[in-house]
Amino acid sequence: MFSFQLLQTDGRARLGRLCTSHGEIHTPVFMPVGTQATVKGVPPRDLVDVGASILLSNTYHLYLRPGDDLIARRGGLHHFMGWNAAILTDSGGFQVFSLSEMRAVDEDGVTFKSHLDGSMHRITPEKSIHIQHNLGADIIMCFDECPPPGDREYNEIALRRTHAWAARCRDAHARAGDAANRQALFGIVQGGAFADLREQSAQFITSLDFPGYAIGGLAVGETKDVTFRVIDQMDSLLPTHKPRYLMGVGEPTDLLRAVARGVDMFDCVLPTRLARHAAAFTRDGRINLRSKSYAEDEAPIDSDCDCYTCRHFTRAYIRHLLHVGEMLGLYLMSVHNLRFLLRLMEAARTAIAERRYTAFASAWLARYEHSPNAAI
Amino acid sequence: MFSFQLLQTDGRARLGRLCTSHGEIHTPVFMPVGTQATVKGVPPRDLVDVGASILLSNTYHLYLRPGDDLIARRGGLHHFMGWNAAILTDSGGFQVFSLSEMRAVDEDGVTFKSHLDGSMHRITPEKSIHIQHNLGADIIMCFDECPPPGDREYNEIALRRTHAWAARCRDAHARAGDAANRQALFGIVQGGAFADLREQSAQFITSLDFPGYAIGGLAVGETKDVTFRVIDQMDSLLPTHKPRYLMGVGEPTDLLRAVARGVDMFDCVLPTRLARHAAAFTRDGRINLRSKSYAEDEAPIDSDCDCYTCRHFTRAYIRHLLHVGEMLGLYLMSVHNLRFLLRLMEAARTAIAERRYTAFASAWLARYEHSPNAAI
Repeated sequence: MFSFQLLQTDGRARLGRLCTSHGEIHTPVFMPVGTQATVKGVPPRDLVDVGASILLSNTYHLYLRPGDDLIARRGGLHHFMGWNAAILTDSGGFQVFSLSEMRAVDEDGVTFKSHLDGSMHRITPEKSIHIQHNLGADIIMCFDECPPPGDREYNEIALRRTHAWAARCRDAHARAGDAANRQALFGIVQGGAFADLREQSAQFITSLDFPGYAIGGLAVGETKDVTFRVIDQMDSLLPTHKPRYLMGVGEPTDLLRAVARGVDMFDCVLPTRLARHAAAFTRDGRINLRSKSYAEDEAPIDSDCDCYTCRHFTRAYIRHLLHVGEMLGLYLMSVHNLRFLLRLMEAARTAIAERRYTAFASAWLARYEHSPNAAI
Repeated sequence: MFSFQLLQTDGRARLGRLCTSHGEIHTPVFMPVGTQATVKGVPPRDLVDVGASILLSNTYHLYLRPGDDLIARRGGLHHFMGWNAAILTDSGGFQVFSLSEMRAVDEDGVTFKSHLDGSMHRITPEKSIHIQHNLGADIIMCFDECPPPGDREYNEIALRRTHAWAARCRDAHARAGDAANRQALFGIVQGGAFADLREQSAQFITSLDFPGYAIGGLAVGETKDVTFRVIDQMDSLLPTHKPRYLMGVGEPTDLLRAVARGVDMFDCVLPTRLARHAAAFTRDGRINLRSKSYAEDEAPIDSDCDCYTCRHFTRAYIRHLLHVGEMLGLYLMSVHNLRFLLRLMEAARTAIAERRYTAFASAWLARYEHSPNAAI
């Protein structure tokens, strides 16, 4: 059971609704990342409180530990981790290419050495889909190859494989009748920084008629110019009535600018990773709470914020926790940073519904970037 | 504002009520420890959920970081850490003697080197009370010297100092009129493993007429025989109508046996420390959740338990979190272990109220210790 309704547009910005068997998701949406079947340090109860309606979890990590077979025997990932709302799993492709050692790519798949214990593994498109069926997420992704965006030759080679693999993923998913009904398989457009490859990829991947499309390869070191040029290009190439997911992007400014260009879904480890580095989002930009300047600051992290952290704790207390290395500091920071992005997406949805997205995003960016004329 | 009412006795077990300006505390009570102004990894909201009515925080740690002056400027410890129920602070004595380096004890106080940065500090009885006034806990403790319990000569010397310091603490506290009204200063009986020194200490300390009495020096390596012999002895030496606090003891079996001997209050880092070592309390004894035997166990940690962890998560999931080193595992284990001890004290209070404490404690100990005739 999966559907997407485009409810309204405001310029290119889109208001939509995804329906899954684990609830509705209002788009534009930010998906917190729970790599190892947990958003680092944040219990599911608190994820509901911050407004999360869908989490992303990583196939590569769960395949290695505790194993997708174990999770299947335990009733699937939702039951295993105690999360009753929606889940999206990535394909493992990105991690195979970024985390593992000694990988060997061939036309059929990838052989790699676990980053944990050096054991050898092989993932093919069919295997990735099998693992994702075992995990049982509501949205699953095609297995793809993720080359550096600026390497033309590698991108051409990788794109051929990514396209062949997408077709094989689609077929493998279709063969699993029951899972195919419960889980929606999204295609991924690759092509690096190259407009012609991106166009070629969008045309091929959309020809396979997936229920949703991701824009891949834009969170790995390319410039913002390239990112937004590709997103602009995608708006005209991807079908209007299917959801669009920009993988691995989580900077609030990038979210607002990508929403303005027609993106519906985002995921990123940024909110929890920043928390581990003592950095917090505020309406006036990022601050680092380890700074001595906050040692006696009675204000909450962000006086506009409605999260548990900002309703109950001062910067002075959080600075103390981070300074002495107390785990509670990470928790309070993570809750705030997650709520900040989820609330930003709530505000974006309201602005689109009221057809004032450009004014909303301009004002928001001007304050966050301390730049009166911040471009959207 | 402080008072204690002894509501009922059942044998030597006591049911009581402490009134503080931050709420009522039903005794017997277990106090979770928040060393650095946080119970490790557990937000105040969850401490309320597990049933905590009073926390212990450590003067030595807070004096060093963030500093008691800073906490006073921030409105005191309750406000600083966002905890609206009661707090007890220790005197710093135990940590000065166990954590710091290069200490020099004289009749007036202790000079020591911080375990954090090697800086030199001096705490006297008056200074300890001053720090505890700055922190503003509802119950504060006399500054004492904590020798190894088996060293007769050292215990004799230390006891003379502890007694002189107790009188100085009482005077320093009395001089601070306003704080003295808001904060109750408890005396501490020392004397190591020696019955005559314990008797001498109980007589002297009770002659100073404190609103409550602690039994100190029993959590530092003495045998259980000694511990319970001293507690037995205290029952007849301490006044009936004042609360009795056994410092640093948190094993569930010790709690039940000490309650049977007339103790009202306990504190210990055990629940959160065990969590960090993957150990959980269950009705059938301790288990280690890192064991592979729990990898596919669908049961909660303890099927009798009503905590957030046991209501929502399986041993299999928690084992996974601990195995891969995810912070959420520590949180879930800490919540469970805290709830386990707090619920045990709730059950003990009910049993005393219903005058069936011996039967309750016998049955509980028999199951926990796998010993049909476990002695209370």
